[in-house]
Amino acid sequence: MSQLFGAIEAGGTKFICAVGSGPDNIRAKLRIPTTTPKETLSLAMAFFHEQEETHGPLAAIGISAFGPIDPHPTSPHFGYITTTPKLAWQYAPLVPMVREEFAVPIGFDTDVNGAALGEQRWGAAQGLDTFVYLTIGTGIGGGGMVNGELLHGLMHPEMGHMYINHDWERDPFPGVCPFHGDCWEGLANGPALAARWKQPGESFPPDHEAWLLEAHYVALGLVNIISILSPQRIILGGGVMSQPHIFPLIRREVRHQVKGYIQMEELNEKIDDFIVPPGLGNQSGLLGSIALAQKALAQSA
Amino acid sequence: MSQLFGAIEAGGTKFICAVGSGPDNIRAKLRIPTTTPKETLSLAMAFFHEQEETHGPLAAIGISAFGPIDPHPTSPHFGYITTTPKLAWQYAPLVPMVREEFAVPIGFDTDVNGAALGEQRWGAAQGLDTFVYLTIGTGIGGGGMVNGELLHGLMHPEMGHMYINHDWERDPFPGVCPFHGDCWEGLANGPALAARWKQPGESFPPDHEAWLLEAHYVALGLVNIISILSPQRIILGGGVMSQPHIFPLIRREVRHQVKGYIQMEELNEKIDDFIVPPGLGNQSGLLGSIALAQKALAQSA
Repeated sequence: MSQLFGAIEAGGTKFICAVGSGPDNIRAKLRIPTTTPKETLSLAMAFFHEQEETHGPLAAIGISAFGPIDPHPTSPHFGYITTTPKLAWQYAPLVPMVREEFAVPIGFDTDVNGAALGEQRWGAAQGLDTFVYLTIGTGIGGGGMVNGELLHGLMHPEMGHMYINHDWERDPFPGVCPFHGDCWEGLANGPALAARWKQPGESFPPDHEAWLLEAHYVALGLVNIISILSPQRIILGGGVMSQPHIFPLIRREVRHQVKGYIQMEELNEKIDDFIVPPGLGNQSGLLGSIALAQKALAQSA
Repeated sequence: MSQLFGAIEAGGTKFICAVGSGPDNIRAKLRIPTTTPKETLSLAMAFFHEQEETHGPLAAIGISAFGPIDPHPTSPHFGYITTTPKLAWQYAPLVPMVREEFAVPIGFDTDVNGAALGEQRWGAAQGLDTFVYLTIGTGIGGGGMVNGELLHGLMHPEMGHMYINHDWERDPFPGVCPFHGDCWEGLANGPALAARWKQPGESFPPDHEAWLLEAHYVALGLVNIISILSPQRIILGGGVMSQPHIFPLIRREVRHQVKGYIQMEELNEKIDDFIVPPGLGNQSGLLGSIALAQKALAQSA
């Protein structure tokens, strides 16, 4: 009998919880609105207890969370969401709260690192050791691996907050980031798309100029990621990227911006395999949380 | 008796060769102009043979080279400089040429990864596992480690060629990068500084506005590196950075651009320890080549 794991994909508007062991074995799933840590977590814990009664004990629990978070196991705030603008969640001790109820190994990382791990185990990053997973939706977040290890460093990446070149003549829109205005996220997330063109992004036809500008901005960020990290592949998920027609535009813009400087086939004839959608669709984060649980179990052995 | 290593710091204008085992033990050093691979390498090989006669056999040789290079040991072009604009050096097989004369382990990496390894062993990155080493001089190059391993990925980073925000009103200078014009390197390397203000960078007084703009551009690149890689420290070397007065300007601009989004003490009260000059001065690259040799020896054991 295979082991079962608890998974929490902790998002800013909803928590998705599941019990299972991989893409082909999800036993149960629950969606909980993100209200307060106490309320949301107690519903998640009740769900796991209930599942244990049906399926037997969970071997480990994995949590991938919106951030910023503290992912350093030796830090006093390990397992906390830290300086989020969502006031009720500032310094919310996610891992300690789960640990109070479940004496099992607990994996914890950013939502995008979780998704990256899921994509490496079952999705579009299998066999790779250095790659990036980005979500472009309400915000822009990036995670990934270098040499087979998830990216952490000082804190963890905050890729959405890099600066890209903003040509004010082409695009006088000032950006929507409350911290930086026209950082990458401020120019290219879903809310920026909607505010600039005064209609929700999903409603633009594929030939609307909004997509050309969006592809231009996404590509500028990708070129910076390529320059700084040299990934073997870039996986683009999130709501804005759920429109397949934007992928060819982004690939063309990336090639245009690199201007032949990096002569690798991945940036030329093989670019369709270099900039790709998630192999796990919109399940990367939830499955990634299962992968985080499995990793925590393996590391505790 | 300690082992001796051969080191080559292969630059675009000069090769520096040395024999030794670390900062306190350099037995001999030679500077060779970068002409053609055959000519330059044969002088380097003659130097090493001569040194072996005096000091005994070299245990390994380390090469850190200008690029782009192929650093992947399993690739058919491993150890080559690849698509450099320096025609005589395109696809120059550095490692194979050295291997023909010396049957010892050979370490090979980019100049900046070599310098990063040197800084980790003996300089300003001791004890860190995720950090970046940048040189800002004739070009801008960046290397470093993530989770204790040197950055490679698809090829290797080309940090100088990221795009930063170019405010044409403040700075109508178009940039000097032959590929990208106003990429980071194109706006902020030494030649850009000289061309924009029509005098060599070293001749500006410390209060010249050139330094404010330079610090602004350097900081924009650093903020992107912080957003994408989350390093524990950034080491800034190279000719432009040899002016100590520019460090406080850069630190201030980085804090200004981050705008409080990343609340880590390293970006606030401890920023003097976060953005630092090389601990090895201008010897990071050469000593890094010794470190690459030592690493190659350890891996061959």
